[in-house]
Amino acid sequence: MPESNKEYLVGVDLGGTKILAGVFDQKLNCLGSAKLSTKAGRGPDAVIERVARCVKDAIDECDLQMKQVIGVGVGAPGASDPVAGRVIFAPNLDWRDVPLKKELEKQLGVPVFIENDCNIQALGVHAKEFKGKPQHLVGIFIGTGIGAGLILDGKLYSGFNRTAGEIGHMVLEVGGPKCNCGNRGCFEALASRTAIFKRIQSAVKDGQKTILTEILEGHLKDMRSGDLRKAIRRGDKLVEKIVEEAAEYTGIAVANVINLLNPEVVVLGGGVMDALEDEMLAIIVETAHDNAMPGTDKGIEIVASKLGDEAGITGGAVLAKQNLG
Amino acid sequence: MPESNKEYLVGVDLGGTKILAGVFDQKLNCLGSAKLSTKAGRGPDAVIERVARCVKDAIDECDLQMKQVIGVGVGAPGASDPVAGRVIFAPNLDWRDVPLKKELEKQLGVPVFIENDCNIQALGVHAKEFKGKPQHLVGIFIGTGIGAGLILDGKLYSGFNRTAGEIGHMVLEVGGPKCNCGNRGCFEALASRTAIFKRIQSAVKDGQKTILTEILEGHLKDMRSGDLRKAIRRGDKLVEKIVEEAAEYTGIAVANVINLLNPEVVVLGGGVMDALEDEMLAIIVETAHDNAMPGTDKGIEIVASKLGDEAGITGGAVLAKQNLG
Repeated sequence: MPESNKEYLVGVDLGGTKILAGVFDQKLNCLGSAKLSTKAGRGPDAVIERVARCVKDAIDECDLQMKQVIGVGVGAPGASDPVAGRVIFAPNLDWRDVPLKKELEKQLGVPVFIENDCNIQALGVHAKEFKGKPQHLVGIFIGTGIGAGLILDGKLYSGFNRTAGEIGHMVLEVGGPKCNCGNRGCFEALASRTAIFKRIQSAVKDGQKTILTEILEGHLKDMRSGDLRKAIRRGDKLVEKIVEEAAEYTGIAVANVINLLNPEVVVLGGGVMDALEDEMLAIIVETAHDNAMPGTDKGIEIVASKLGDEAGITGGAVLAKQNLG
Repeated sequence: MPESNKEYLVGVDLGGTKILAGVFDQKLNCLGSAKLSTKAGRGPDAVIERVARCVKDAIDECDLQMKQVIGVGVGAPGASDPVAGRVIFAPNLDWRDVPLKKELEKQLGVPVFIENDCNIQALGVHAKEFKGKPQHLVGIFIGTGIGAGLILDGKLYSGFNRTAGEIGHMVLEVGGPKCNCGNRGCFEALASRTAIFKRIQSAVKDGQKTILTEILEGHLKDMRSGDLRKAIRRGDKLVEKIVEEAAEYTGIAVANVINLLNPEVVVLGGGVMDALEDEMLAIIVETAHDNAMPGTDKGIEIVASKLGDEAGITGGAVLAKQNLG
């Protein structure tokens, strides 16, 4: 059983559908975790109560007590103001200007720090998988949407309005497919899970065949990234082609990042990458090197994160640790 | 006449066709300058001798002497290693691994510092036009090619291989027009002077009419950015349309930068912008705001630099000043 020292950190990944909380020691080992659904429809107060409950559940899971925790770091979707401790705008949660830090501190009685979810995932990956070594690391997270976290000159870079990393809305194809943001040809509209699903649905409408209709018993809209992997492994050429195209677009986005920011490491994560690494990574790496300016990509690593769901909660622990000095 | 103190800085802009040197006081006022053609074809030794001569000419122009100069900063095209003082690869000069710093120090007898030309222009614009205030500034320079310099967290950001800022090779249109780098659809292949010229030439070949054939007496390949402005002001619809399209692509590139880096200021410079600011800037600003994620562009300035040719030499002086502490 862990000692009774007051030395534990809690990281929280607050997503549109689920809340994940993990308890970490100072060396960033995850001692245990807990999960709750978000229930965003019940409004901010209910969600914040659920976050607090999830944190307490994770601590209890580790046979620890709240008083042994020195701080909590939370990754929230959308734009956050970490200094004011407020979530400014999170469409996934339908939140506008929610004082998350203050409310959680009231309920938990320990210091709470907040950051954008992709920033926090990049922090987690940088600290845990790279021992915080690369001075410049870009983490690109591909799921329902696409976002990035930037570690530049050894620390999190968030820019003027603290919204840096919105790589999902980098235009890769002027006049390309419509994106949720209202524009066309964004990276997210070409390579996110949503984009892949849309292309499969449209191909099926046009009469093309896919094993997915069988796997999902006709309910295509229930498709998950894992179903795509299953279909490809069972020889589904349509799904294979569409996933390969998404990997090519991702490679071009990685090349754009290398050309502009010349990071030492580009690390890819998120649900789509977790499920389809074997199918996508080699294509992404090859396309990125093909599209990077000769010489700029020398020695640059392009890899997939192995942290999966743990990236966000690990990053939350790192955020708390950094803020508590 | 300036005092005889040892306090002056010299900035040099070493380009593929010309060398410009400027003498600056500590407040970055330009006291005088000199210009020489580069004569890259004569090889690195001859070019370095010409740089040294241009520096001495500029100093003499200001009635100063070399011993009153504390340092020289040089912006060179292509990839440079400022620490080793070497130009690693500069296609415009046909240079590979040239020890520019050491050779110039030998000839000038004062400390010399080198940097990439776009980085140095961004430094100059940041220091002179913005008093070094914005923490995050991206300078995009549009001429024959397109490059950028990034000031992040108050200082020049150059990345792992020191090649950050290669925005000209950011893909904006997968499968778009061929770029000199070998890829397709790069920003530079869509909006540089070279790209604009190619599109006009191709339209003329297709039988479209432009006043440029008259202005240039049939020698279309002698087109300069100023000729484009003249043609537009004389009502040339073809040139107007092609320049507007280049401005739209530039606006999309600016939006990509805002989404990814969220800088406080995006400043546009280079020969094309200097000549066509009135025709392009409003379109760039509008397109950038249209394509930036809502909220990310709040309060961000998108402006044209007024420094023109002085950006590079000013940045050279800033570089020397910063390095001499």
